[in-house]
Amino acid sequence: MRIQVAIIGSGPSGLLLGQLLTDAGIDNVILDRVNKEYILDRVRAGVLEEGTVGLLDQAKAGARLHAEGLPHDGFSLAFDGRDHRIDLHELTGGRRVTVYGQTEVTRDLMERREASGALSIYDAADVTPHDFNGHSPFVTYTKDGVTKRIDCDFTAGCDGFHGVSRKAVPEQAIRHFEKIYPFGWLGLLADVAPVSHELIYANHPRGFALCSMRSATRSRYYIQCALDEKVEAWSDDRFWDELRRRLPAHHAEALVTAPSFEKSIAPLRSFVAEPMRFGRLFLVGDAAHIVPPTGAKGLNLAASDVHYLFSGLVEHYQERSNSGIDAYSQTALARVWKAVRFSWWMTTMMHRFPDTGDFEQKIQEAELDYLTHSRAASTVLAENYVGLPF
Amino acid sequence: MRIQVAIIGSGPSGLLLGQLLTDAGIDNVILDRVNKEYILDRVRAGVLEEGTVGLLDQAKAGARLHAEGLPHDGFSLAFDGRDHRIDLHELTGGRRVTVYGQTEVTRDLMERREASGALSIYDAADVTPHDFNGHSPFVTYTKDGVTKRIDCDFTAGCDGFHGVSRKAVPEQAIRHFEKIYPFGWLGLLADVAPVSHELIYANHPRGFALCSMRSATRSRYYIQCALDEKVEAWSDDRFWDELRRRLPAHHAEALVTAPSFEKSIAPLRSFVAEPMRFGRLFLVGDAAHIVPPTGAKGLNLAASDVHYLFSGLVEHYQERSNSGIDAYSQTALARVWKAVRFSWWMTTMMHRFPDTGDFEQKIQEAELDYLTHSRAASTVLAENYVGLPF
Repeated sequence: MRIQVAIIGSGPSGLLLGQLLTDAGIDNVILDRVNKEYILDRVRAGVLEEGTVGLLDQAKAGARLHAEGLPHDGFSLAFDGRDHRIDLHELTGGRRVTVYGQTEVTRDLMERREASGALSIYDAADVTPHDFNGHSPFVTYTKDGVTKRIDCDFTAGCDGFHGVSRKAVPEQAIRHFEKIYPFGWLGLLADVAPVSHELIYANHPRGFALCSMRSATRSRYYIQCALDEKVEAWSDDRFWDELRRRLPAHHAEALVTAPSFEKSIAPLRSFVAEPMRFGRLFLVGDAAHIVPPTGAKGLNLAASDVHYLFSGLVEHYQERSNSGIDAYSQTALARVWKAVRFSWWMTTMMHRFPDTGDFEQKIQEAELDYLTHSRAASTVLAENYVGLPF
Repeated sequence: MRIQVAIIGSGPSGLLLGQLLTDAGIDNVILDRVNKEYILDRVRAGVLEEGTVGLLDQAKAGARLHAEGLPHDGFSLAFDGRDHRIDLHELTGGRRVTVYGQTEVTRDLMERREASGALSIYDAADVTPHDFNGHSPFVTYTKDGVTKRIDCDFTAGCDGFHGVSRKAVPEQAIRHFEKIYPFGWLGLLADVAPVSHELIYANHPRGFALCSMRSATRSRYYIQCALDEKVEAWSDDRFWDELRRRLPAHHAEALVTAPSFEKSIAPLRSFVAEPMRFGRLFLVGDAAHIVPPTGAKGLNLAASDVHYLFSGLVEHYQERSNSGIDAYSQTALARVWKAVRFSWWMTTMMHRFPDTGDFEQKIQEAELDYLTHSRAASTVLAENYVGLPF
């Protein structure tokens, strides 16, 4: 089989890139080592920037998002027992974010792909990109015991942090930048109305807490925890008690609880691989970079990578110019590093670090005080939160 | 002798407070362990916020400053071989800073004090504040071998980081917050026109550099150096060569050199003592807090302390209300911590730290990139640089 673009990974970035390419008349195949149901079972947050929503609209996958997604015009920074609202809409000249689960984004894109008739190969074992530094790259995979080969012009590695694409690159050709944070997030899902219709990011002496939601009837709550915590040690009651302690009193009193149906601990990491292009192989999204969930940049960063790569591929096929794909790595990384910086900064500002000295703690408090009292500083937070321009 | 306010320290904060009090009809005496000439020999920077200039005008000590001071509407952040101008005037709605040496401020205030006939006692040994937690505080000192006593309503400790005022407070009554930076500034003064009419703050892989000036014919240059550097190891030529390496090429080429007449190494420190009031003793300026010179906040912070304390004392004497002096510590510290945060942030952003990892270095570069491309972020820098409101 011969195709123009082989996409490894059927998460939101692979699906979005595939859909945009298909609609632009560029042949592509999506390969994934697991099946659709497995992918749709993953629990992921979803706070979408307008740029991401625009790309989903461009891929004609935005209808349900507009019908069911929750537009958010602001959020709360809670500290010192009080809420400080960041008015995204007012500070950014009318922009907002949309709360819509990543799983739903994936589902909508899968449906669009199915309707468009483009090829997806699931349960493909041992997917491997080959010869991407030469002129005739190809991808191999094994399905039903048979190893197959797809020749392509380009390969897009959309297979996440643990995927094969980045690992296929020789070690000496790639640089890694990483920060591991000394805490995790213990998260819980419950079918109950959220404590507030907007997100609450709380900085409390006991640690960070986040009140988020998937919908008007499904809440997602997180509390900062030690890296060696075990989820089994956290009964629902213990979780709710700890969450209440970290929220301003009026929220703690308003919190409605229900039995959880998902509870897990996630570590926090910042990671960037450079460059993001190796000949005819491009890394996209989590395959190239990971951000901590504070500020919800992960999915949005994958979307902006897709935007740059799609534009470059369109230029290549329609205008016979390689300038877009030649610039891909540098252009994508400039935005990636800004979002990595923002996620690192918001994480640093909102969490209690186990080794923070008295001076650093006062600096954190001064920063929150300044941030919530300066229009310019609030705007810095807001413009990053709604997403810097592509 | 009995007086309303005893001021310890004849630096700019003590002199400014004294002048404002004298003009308001509040008796005061200034005590200093050294003499005027010694004080006027100290070399100090001087970038004055408009609030500071306003206070000097209020003290009728602003005439020469307006005639000879250099108004600055912007400065340069230099990195990656290029200048990025921060347009203070445009970003802050018309505000600016004034370059005017701290020594000149001190000289002008001393002249005003002399003209006003208020009492200053120089060469006063063993100045000590007593009983400030009681109702009858007094200050003792020794002059010409005789120990004398001044009874007062209040004592203002304007005697700097190494002064006696803070040390007179019982250890258990005070908290210290401190950060020592792992580098120093090697500074040089030369009678030569500055390389640029605006300040240049340079971040370079070899370390930070600052091109500053005292006047149109006197330049003040600094380079970041290791803490264990010896000033004797730095000939003028070595200094100029190193400075040139850290500047964008067009500045390095334009740099005019001359023999230095002062060269010294200063460590960088952030320090805050809390609270700033102990009964009838108030700490003012460097006696309570130190900032690294990056961003030039030291003198301006002393001036805002003077503003709050003066207002409180006027309220006490003229309106028989203690609400201003009761709020002094909290009000002053709120602004202090914001300036301490700003100085720490600007220091962190502009210097190369010996123990910085690859990730942190990329974050620094991303921050500079973001800062110089976002109007909101540039405004954050500008509004702090020109000074947050009192």
